[in-house]
Amino acid sequence: MNISMIRYILCQVMRIEGALMLLPSLISIIYGDGEGMYYGIVAGVLIISGFVGCRFVPKDQNINVKEGYTVTGLSWLVMSAFGCLPFWLSGEIPSFTDAFFETASGFTTTGASILSEVESLSHTALFWRSFTHWIGGMGVLVFLLALIPMSGGSNINLMKAESPGPSVGKLVPKIRHSALILYVIYMVMTLLETVFLLFGGLNLFDAFCLAFGTAGTGGFAVKNDSFMSYSLYIRWVAGIFMFLFGVNFNAYYFLIMRQFKKLFSMEEVRTFFFIVAVSTGIVFWQILPLYESGITAMTDAFFQVSSVVSTTGFGSADFDMWPTTAKFVLCFLMFMGACAGSTGGGIKVSRLMILWKSVVREVKSYIHPKIVKKVTLDGKSVDADVLKSTHVFLATYAGIFLLSMLFVSLNNSDMTTTFTAVLACLNNIGPGLSKVGATCNYGFLSCFSKWVLIVDMLAGRLELYPIIVLFAPSLYKK
Amino acid sequence: MNISMIRYILCQVMRIEGALMLLPSLISIIYGDGEGMYYGIVAGVLIISGFVGCRFVPKDQNINVKEGYTVTGLSWLVMSAFGCLPFWLSGEIPSFTDAFFETASGFTTTGASILSEVESLSHTALFWRSFTHWIGGMGVLVFLLALIPMSGGSNINLMKAESPGPSVGKLVPKIRHSALILYVIYMVMTLLETVFLLFGGLNLFDAFCLAFGTAGTGGFAVKNDSFMSYSLYIRWVAGIFMFLFGVNFNAYYFLIMRQFKKLFSMEEVRTFFFIVAVSTGIVFWQILPLYESGITAMTDAFFQVSSVVSTTGFGSADFDMWPTTAKFVLCFLMFMGACAGSTGGGIKVSRLMILWKSVVREVKSYIHPKIVKKVTLDGKSVDADVLKSTHVFLATYAGIFLLSMLFVSLNNSDMTTTFTAVLACLNNIGPGLSKVGATCNYGFLSCFSKWVLIVDMLAGRLELYPIIVLFAPSLYKK
Repeated sequence: MNISMIRYILCQVMRIEGALMLLPSLISIIYGDGEGMYYGIVAGVLIISGFVGCRFVPKDQNINVKEGYTVTGLSWLVMSAFGCLPFWLSGEIPSFTDAFFETASGFTTTGASILSEVESLSHTALFWRSFTHWIGGMGVLVFLLALIPMSGGSNINLMKAESPGPSVGKLVPKIRHSALILYVIYMVMTLLETVFLLFGGLNLFDAFCLAFGTAGTGGFAVKNDSFMSYSLYIRWVAGIFMFLFGVNFNAYYFLIMRQFKKLFSMEEVRTFFFIVAVSTGIVFWQILPLYESGITAMTDAFFQVSSVVSTTGFGSADFDMWPTTAKFVLCFLMFMGACAGSTGGGIKVSRLMILWKSVVREVKSYIHPKIVKKVTLDGKSVDADVLKSTHVFLATYAGIFLLSMLFVSLNNSDMTTTFTAVLACLNNIGPGLSKVGATCNYGFLSCFSKWVLIVDMLAGRLELYPIIVLFAPSLYKK
Repeated sequence: MNISMIRYILCQVMRIEGALMLLPSLISIIYGDGEGMYYGIVAGVLIISGFVGCRFVPKDQNINVKEGYTVTGLSWLVMSAFGCLPFWLSGEIPSFTDAFFETASGFTTTGASILSEVESLSHTALFWRSFTHWIGGMGVLVFLLALIPMSGGSNINLMKAESPGPSVGKLVPKIRHSALILYVIYMVMTLLETVFLLFGGLNLFDAFCLAFGTAGTGGFAVKNDSFMSYSLYIRWVAGIFMFLFGVNFNAYYFLIMRQFKKLFSMEEVRTFFFIVAVSTGIVFWQILPLYESGITAMTDAFFQVSSVVSTTGFGSADFDMWPTTAKFVLCFLMFMGACAGSTGGGIKVSRLMILWKSVVREVKSYIHPKIVKKVTLDGKSVDADVLKSTHVFLATYAGIFLLSMLFVSLNNSDMTTTFTAVLACLNNIGPGLSKVGATCNYGFLSCFSKWVLIVDMLAGRLELYPIIVLFAPSLYKK
């Protein structure tokens, strides 16, 4: 185990988090709510300890896959632990568990909240909540890779551990440049949404917060009723951007580079479009009788489908009241999630596609035993290793899901609440159904359940292994 | 496609079903309820057309895997279609869909009923209901194999298609002898349970019906409240036998042959014991506060765990009223089901073990990339093909589950009802939770939902592929 490299990366992460935390302090000065002090203090601690820890640059900068997972899991724990301190110290969220839950929910872009209402929070706290989404969406280690040149195989192992999807698509040969390109696209799209939201009559603060929440596919809003009181225009802007942030970012790179052939050959993105269209259609058909106007029904159908499939979790309607088929479609989309290489969570479209194709192949091989075809994606045959690891990912996912359900069921809430609470946290969505529905929150759960869900949120964001590795005792054996 | 061999086997199945249907006619004579006529007529039609169809023995008796699946799927459809006629013709179940549902539920040993009360049924109908469980538990084609010598690879392909579990364990080199041994064990155990139930004060009719329902792990009872009004003794007898019928039958063969070493090396059976013990413990702990006496709580905990894990579905208590954790444990056991090579349904313990072990291996290989260990079961390494097909089985299972949920959700029942209705039918259990709970029935569902659940029951009993193959149009292409 390359301990000194792990220490070095962790301290870099702390330094970055400290620097980012200066932003809410600035907000506090603008709005004069006096909360900035707590953010300033924690930022100071992070920056100083980060700087001290980074003084000694390790000679051996190589980390292997195992160390990549470990340092990624640890980084996210450290980020959440320090990130929650201002909430707790300022007393805006008096319980440490709740503060940790809210922060982990922010960084992992889950958007599940323990707060029954958010409008009484200070501007500073609201900003930090939404900003954690933006930081977590693209990932801190990816940010680190974009900033700091690291030698050896470190880059790819870190990128692998933090980026979602069955395999990492390098845009350009150098990982550092890939990370940089992704961050630039991310920033430009966030700004674009902010501008569109400003046109809809939102003030700058709200527009930025909501754009952060959309970009990271997080889901923390600035109003108690999320998007329910906003105009149709704002709902469409957010709906479309949630969808766009659920698309594999490589698509935007191809778009900018005018590589249209590569763009249109992205099977996952095409499938994503198709599934969103069909789901919106089904939901629209199911909810139409509940609405007076077809346009409002269409808006809410698309908004909610887009919100859930991108694992954002904004709410423009209380979908817990919708017909069962509509709820079922939303639950299915919660499981599926967005494209690999987007900021969205869930199992990912490409994993389900690989799975689907391997099932079809297997069934065909029962029928025509002599024809053995390879599973292909984007016209290329899928590696046997990727195939196997996809199956194992899903099995691990199911295992974690079941165990979490068992633990959360001890609250003795109804089955739908228990099931969707785990679903919404493990897939980084936010709201579920029933008692954790769009108009409710997670505050009523026991401390134990909250910690289980915190682990789920982290496991979901980092695609299981970086968190499992932290729990596996055999990790430290040679 | 060896059409004439498929025709031959189908006609053999019809002949057997006709012969078996003479038994309820006999019951009708004993009880003089006048219902026997309908059974006699259908039996006559089956026997005559079966005899005619079997006159021409095909020259080429070989069937391949694909034909094995096809004929198995068709056989079960034919059995259900003819088996439901007496219910429908006699008017005891006036709707054809309902009669088909009840019969498919019987043969597939599901035990899901559309009847709101069963005590007003004639003895003949009650007997036939329970007897379908017994026939379906071990399988008709296995029965056929035991009776009729067939040449070529037909035996193994039929056995494969009808027997549950990831691989077929031949007890003795000849398939026919294996099938015979299994049927003898099955009969002896059924008789044994009948005797034990008689000691508990049941009359011969009830004892036989309940023993049939237990042996096939079906779940049709002869009272409206299933087992709720029976004594603790009877609950223990049924509880223990449900458990025993959920064990891989090879264990009993080893026991009889005094091959204790082989017996104790059966990992799946050991795991099954362990899971049942732990689950009973958790359920007991959760429901104890609801009971006045610890012994009754223990009885119901064990009975319900045993009923659900063996996918029988008898009810000694309304477990829909139990705490969420207890319900969750039961739902998990519903998914898992019994051992491969038993009469129980579900995913099967061995599949989950193979899955679990392959996950553990994968996680380990992330941590220690240089050590690659094989997945083993019963001390033998699991074939890569079995491993792959296990993963694909589970994916197919999930796909069918989702699609069925989507269809059944159109009833607009609550999520728990929709979810557990599909779960209980696909895994051949019977009762679910909420509106399809232990004290409810499936009668309120739409015709469309009932047919979806019929397909689920058949797909569950035959482990998916024989039914999928019937739906796949590419089957008939060369």
